[in-house]
Amino acid sequence: MAAAPFELHPQLRADAHALVDLDLSRVLLMDDARYAWLILVPMRAGMSDWIDLPHAGQHRLLDEIELCSRALRIVARPDKLNVAALGNLVPQLHVHVVARHVGDAAWPKPVWGIGERAPYPADTLAARKAQLLAQIEIARRG
Amino acid sequence: MAAAPFELHPQLRADAHALVDLDLSRVLLMDDARYAWLILVPMRAGMSDWIDLPHAGQHRLLDEIELCSRALRIVARPDKLNVAALGNLVPQLHVHVVARHVGDAAWPKPVWGIGERAPYPADTLAARKAQLLAQIEIARRG
Repeated sequence: MAAAPFELHPQLRADAHALVDLDLSRVLLMDDARYAWLILVPMRAGMSDWIDLPHAGQHRLLDEIELCSRALRIVARPDKLNVAALGNLVPQLHVHVVARHVGDAAWPKPVWGIGERAPYPADTLAARKAQLLAQIEIARRG
Repeated sequence: MAAAPFELHPQLRADAHALVDLDLSRVLLMDDARYAWLILVPMRAGMSDWIDLPHAGQHRLLDEIELCSRALRIVARPDKLNVAALGNLVPQLHVHVVARHVGDAAWPKPVWGIGERAPYPADTLAARKAQLLAQIEIARRG
């Protein structure tokens, strides 16, 4: 039997921009200029919790989180990284990697449900995507 | 030079009960009977973000998260697992693994900062610790 095809959850498609497909995960940039915020979505159908992935896939996801974390450190110089697989509203397995700064819009609270999303202006969006893509590529080769 | 000794952050010591030391992490049970909630604290000084651990340690932490997740699935039968390394208030690297249920005290929001912690009565605490310990042991051997 063929595996069900992967389809990005409509809520993630609505809230974020596709950045790059890694070996396992589609990396999205959350459309919220208040934070540098990436979301990794393993391109496998029917996964909800991290431990739903096979063991090697769990590790692969973590390695891709590391790539994204390193890129965010270079691009956003965060005071803290937040890494979270929640999924109470969007059951499709996805992991948030958020660059946090002391004094940001939610600090020191978690980012979810705080105020209104602030979509990127088009030129800022293009620049941010390009920066992050370049750093993910560098981390990948590193 | 000897590595600095590991010491549990006082806030974690105040909010949670030590359950077991795994190879890398001290596992704590959050003293909040509203949720089945474990916290893993890698026993290494000076770590704040997940990617601060060496590569093998990052994977080891994930494997220990998997053990705790499997134990929580058996003990608490959650609708969703929440896995999160935040650390905005407590900078010492730690990962929350929380068994969530539709309709629980925070659902569908994240658990942090919602209402007041509800400490376990002594007998419930002992029972919950014993159940979780037993299941972590089984997952370890599995």
